[in-house]
Amino acid sequence: MTTTAPRPTAGAPAAHAPAAPAPGTVPSTVPSTVPSTVPDTGDPRLDRDSAVDVPALAGLLLGHYPELRRQARALMAQDRFHGVPGLPMAEHRTRVLEQLRALAAEGDVHRAFPTRFGGADDHGGSLARFEELVVGDPSLQIKAGVQWGLFASAILHLGTDRHHDAWLPDALSVDVPGVFAMTETGHGSDVSAIGTTITFDPATDELVVHTPFPAARKDYLGNAAVHGTAAVVFGRLVTAPRGGQPVDHGVHAVYVPIRDRGTNALLPGIGSEDDGLKGGLNGIDNGRLWFDHVRVPRTNLLDRYGQVAPDGTYSSPIASPGRRFFTMLGTLVQGRVSLDGAAVAAARAGLAVAVTYGNQRRQFAGPGGDEGVLLDYAEHQRRLLPLLAETYAAGFAHEDLLAAFDDVFSGRNDTTESREDLETMAAALKAASTWSALRTLQTCREACGGAGFLATNRLVGLRADLDVYVTFEGDNTVLLQLVGKRLLADHAQELRHLDATKVARLVAERAADAARYRTPLHRALQTVADVGDPRRSAGQLRDTATQRALLVDRVETMVAEVATALRPARKASPEVAAALFNGQQHALVEAARAHAELIRWESFTAAVERTTDPGTRQVLVWLRDLYGLGLVEQHLAWYLLNGRLSAGRARTVTSYVDRLLARLRPHAQDLVDAFGYGPEHLRAEIATGAEGRRQDEARRWARARRAAADAPVPERRTARPAG
Amino acid sequence: MTTTAPRPTAGAPAAHAPAAPAPGTVPSTVPSTVPSTVPDTGDPRLDRDSAVDVPALAGLLLGHYPELRRQARALMAQDRFHGVPGLPMAEHRTRVLEQLRALAAEGDVHRAFPTRFGGADDHGGSLARFEELVVGDPSLQIKAGVQWGLFASAILHLGTDRHHDAWLPDALSVDVPGVFAMTETGHGSDVSAIGTTITFDPATDELVVHTPFPAARKDYLGNAAVHGTAAVVFGRLVTAPRGGQPVDHGVHAVYVPIRDRGTNALLPGIGSEDDGLKGGLNGIDNGRLWFDHVRVPRTNLLDRYGQVAPDGTYSSPIASPGRRFFTMLGTLVQGRVSLDGAAVAAARAGLAVAVTYGNQRRQFAGPGGDEGVLLDYAEHQRRLLPLLAETYAAGFAHEDLLAAFDDVFSGRNDTTESREDLETMAAALKAASTWSALRTLQTCREACGGAGFLATNRLVGLRADLDVYVTFEGDNTVLLQLVGKRLLADHAQELRHLDATKVARLVAERAADAARYRTPLHRALQTVADVGDPRRSAGQLRDTATQRALLVDRVETMVAEVATALRPARKASPEVAAALFNGQQHALVEAARAHAELIRWESFTAAVERTTDPGTRQVLVWLRDLYGLGLVEQHLAWYLLNGRLSAGRARTVTSYVDRLLARLRPHAQDLVDAFGYGPEHLRAEIATGAEGRRQDEARRWARARRAAADAPVPERRTARPAG
Repeated sequence: MTTTAPRPTAGAPAAHAPAAPAPGTVPSTVPSTVPSTVPDTGDPRLDRDSAVDVPALAGLLLGHYPELRRQARALMAQDRFHGVPGLPMAEHRTRVLEQLRALAAEGDVHRAFPTRFGGADDHGGSLARFEELVVGDPSLQIKAGVQWGLFASAILHLGTDRHHDAWLPDALSVDVPGVFAMTETGHGSDVSAIGTTITFDPATDELVVHTPFPAARKDYLGNAAVHGTAAVVFGRLVTAPRGGQPVDHGVHAVYVPIRDRGTNALLPGIGSEDDGLKGGLNGIDNGRLWFDHVRVPRTNLLDRYGQVAPDGTYSSPIASPGRRFFTMLGTLVQGRVSLDGAAVAAARAGLAVAVTYGNQRRQFAGPGGDEGVLLDYAEHQRRLLPLLAETYAAGFAHEDLLAAFDDVFSGRNDTTESREDLETMAAALKAASTWSALRTLQTCREACGGAGFLATNRLVGLRADLDVYVTFEGDNTVLLQLVGKRLLADHAQELRHLDATKVARLVAERAADAARYRTPLHRALQTVADVGDPRRSAGQLRDTATQRALLVDRVETMVAEVATALRPARKASPEVAAALFNGQQHALVEAARAHAELIRWESFTAAVERTTDPGTRQVLVWLRDLYGLGLVEQHLAWYLLNGRLSAGRARTVTSYVDRLLARLRPHAQDLVDAFGYGPEHLRAEIATGAEGRRQDEARRWARARRAAADAPVPERRTARPAG
Repeated sequence: MTTTAPRPTAGAPAAHAPAAPAPGTVPSTVPSTVPSTVPDTGDPRLDRDSAVDVPALAGLLLGHYPELRRQARALMAQDRFHGVPGLPMAEHRTRVLEQLRALAAEGDVHRAFPTRFGGADDHGGSLARFEELVVGDPSLQIKAGVQWGLFASAILHLGTDRHHDAWLPDALSVDVPGVFAMTETGHGSDVSAIGTTITFDPATDELVVHTPFPAARKDYLGNAAVHGTAAVVFGRLVTAPRGGQPVDHGVHAVYVPIRDRGTNALLPGIGSEDDGLKGGLNGIDNGRLWFDHVRVPRTNLLDRYGQVAPDGTYSSPIASPGRRFFTMLGTLVQGRVSLDGAAVAAARAGLAVAVTYGNQRRQFAGPGGDEGVLLDYAEHQRRLLPLLAETYAAGFAHEDLLAAFDDVFSGRNDTTESREDLETMAAALKAASTWSALRTLQTCREACGGAGFLATNRLVGLRADLDVYVTFEGDNTVLLQLVGKRLLADHAQELRHLDATKVARLVAERAADAARYRTPLHRALQTVADVGDPRRSAGQLRDTATQRALLVDRVETMVAEVATALRPARKASPEVAAALFNGQQHALVEAARAHAELIRWESFTAAVERTTDPGTRQVLVWLRDLYGLGLVEQHLAWYLLNGRLSAGRARTVTSYVDRLLARLRPHAQDLVDAFGYGPEHLRAEIATGAEGRRQDEARRWARARRAAADAPVPERRTARPAG
């Protein structure tokens, strides 16, 4: 910074951040410049008594683990855990490793681990804590995820007691920074096709880890480029029992030291390459690893789900190779669960910044000559408030997911079905919320104009870091296909309960429906009786049961249509079946997306029903309606084409959304304040009140100037200048 | 990079970039692994004779200035003009300043300037050259834009001969890096409200430049933080003729030296602050400037449109202060025109990377055990090909915009009306293409998975740099409102030509239409006669006249609806009128968006009609149809609600879009190759053929292993292991 001239004299020259509230308390970031009266939106039904009880709502949003979240936020309020924009990559990596060790020293990073390792066997609580790290620095969060969520967790879940004793203490303390070596350059989301081999050699009682071709190199691995000294390596386990024919037992994991713990030099046979600079998360040293016939003791196999005897005989508690593979991978669901939560946290932080700024920033003079705050402009509300509603929905859905996760991992409800449900829900919500977060952060940055583009206002950095969340731990598009396939399987399951006659009738009905699609719309959803009065229509769309019926019906119908289209595949050749499936891929992905939207809406609705304060509940109902009717508006063509809404009723959707925006606008600041982030979490100058003070100074100056006797008069009020 | 182990032995260990083709020639980036036969999509109408003449299409895409674009690309193929990912900010800034001077030394940066300064008075050609800089480094492009497009251009367009003689040579050579000091912290897009004052002091014959309050500090200015030694400063010109009442003549520009050209120290009275790290474009030293009663000679006023005499008398060739303001700002339209072109170039580069990778990358085994290339998956096509169509449309529209710009600035067609048309078109297209570029680059990055997130593959860097294009040189949302207001004015103009009876009839008809909206759909667009056969319907939607009718009708209807809703504003109080306008803001922005889409579609259609090669033309027709019907699909609810499409016909839109995707898929590589970027422009490892080679090696290895006698057999083909 270079300054040789005095700063302008009017008012405070620059921002002073308000004193940080005690960590864990709900800060009031409401600036003094926000009008305290509700602007008159012209809607006579605007309920002026509706008001958000911000601390109570903040409590609701803290979910199942309020204390753990508060503690984690208190830690993340400390400078030492903050990302520093613009730090060179090498320094950023070192800083994050130090932060990781500082976190370990604080304790409680072990919550998910057994008590004998200092843990609490608390799986849900551990994730809740972990998710909060994102406001410190997403690099810290993901490095923590690599170390404890992937590397140590793989030892815990895929290994047995002797592995735990040998390796968990150093993994938990970060004395051994670890690599989770699953993804290969040639195979990301299709883990079953990886090429690395783990071959048993009975002569030496060793496993030989090998990278047979370049595309089989491990890639994008956190800790691989610099810090990692050991890795859990996934490969195809090959053994030849008693010297017989070698058998490929599919994907297994083995613990492999990769660097000397003293010198950090790569061990013999290990190759590594730095992935270099990335679009974000540059505090993590992602890199490649490859193996040239690297030998480790047979006992290094993490063999909970598959053991090799000294004579090469393979055994497993799970007979089916397919089920075994999915059981091993299933332990990784926590990654997706926690990314869902972290994405919600990042979107909340972005909205807190943009809404606060939108309530202070003034632009374009109104009829009285005074400039309006941005959030009073209808288009600004259209851009931000639906994302606020979506982020609320995503947050409530995440808490439900976290509860389901804890039920399974605590053993309270650990069945094949509950695991499958959990995996489907995690895949659907992770895809939905990571994409939402990117869209939200980008819109927030644009809504803050040039100020939003400055690193000091956080939005661009958060967006850059969150970018890869949409393709890692399962590419979102691939995840939605998994969800879609599960929906198809459930649909088939339902049909199986019907007898043949009923199925035939169902098919006939569907054919009749299809014929009707070609005629003008006559069909109406039974629960949504058509009435002519748009006011009453809007009232009905506001109804919880109507919204649910519309959203459920869409998912079910979309899935049924795909199932019907795929019916011929059962008797077709594999090639024709594959082509048929490819032809339905887009429709299946869209159905999965609709399913995720429905889950979120249901969670939001359940949360509204838990809300007791009437004012808060009223505002949350509006926000839930904005989310629900926003979805209906977005998919309006589908509802029209499939006869679920008449044109008359459909036309009321947008005007009702507009009314909701006007109703919610006065509560926008409360709704972002309830996220509970203080200035030490947001760390965005434009969300500190600085903009409001600047605007106040400018307006004071303008008023003083107007009042002055020697004030210049505008040219248009004088005689025309000489031409 | 640390490597202690030999790399895997099969095949080439890493990518070797193919030899770069001579700059200016069309490179063939088609990798050998792309299937040369068209995959069977099951569509009997797939025309196997359709084929793109890539060099001819590349020629068409080079537009009006093929030689200038080729020359600029040849320069940008040189290492010295390339951005270096991860360069620290300070070094990046220095590098870009050096690049700027190297460009100046190459000559031809002066094309837009008069011949006596080494220029060619070639306004359109100059922009075409400038746009191509984006593939070198967007920071270089924007720094060039600040120096020549804003700073030097302001001297040229707002000054007179003596200003040109005094300051243009040093501005053009970059001996004086210059600042274009218009935007203030408190005022971005609303330039008319800036607070900086330029007050004439007759006692010393000087102008006093002053920043009266902090929000009036100049902000986000390129060259302000470090390099700039002079600035064109915009402020409100105040003079008191012959000692009378001071008059505020509105926004004018003055030339102000800000740093010592020898020591680079700030001059007395000048304050500056660095904007610091940004979300992108970190090769540019954006910063703030403020002025504490800084005095410059009266003659420093850039006074083409407003002069101050020594006695303080103000005169201007333009009597109306409003028209004067817009005339002065109108010279800045070239910024928007060139950003439109640069955004298209960046989107093209992204698509070239993602489509090439999608044609080589394999994932998930198909029915024959072989993995498919990504672009054969229907969802991958759905993600990328509509963006390819949109980018083609945006490119053709840009060439039309550039022609309109050159017509005005060359004086060939410089009327008030043609200037207004140009400004509207530039605002609409700049908003559309900069948003398209962000969406496209993000989708491309996601379509490349983890590889897309690595800086070495360019996509994340391009997206980060392009981010601010959507809010600078006019925030896109503000620009769309300007477009919308122009559409409203045109609409009013049309109504004025009708007599009162006709207007009354029109209003009555519209009311009748509105009534019909509430009933099931009966209305059909006259040009789209409803027929039952979906095949024929699709055929009709494919028809150019039908697409045009649908797109034109939507814009006109939306504008007319807003106009009708605003009608009461004419007789209302300013407050009520403002509220009414705010209530229509979203609809007006959407109408402007639809207008931009229509312009693009028209330009695409005109380009198709200029295409003579039948195979190329056929493919371009499909691509244009994909763009046009993609728009109809996107806005399907509108067409249904407003009775423009029956449900039956609307249902054919998506299936026809799917058919177009299958038809275009085999031509995707040709369509991105025709963009004419070689590896030296794309500089993305994944677009060099490296991925194809890796995949080939992996497949060779798998085949060899299957053939080997001692190959492991999959467990599922053996007896079950012991449990």
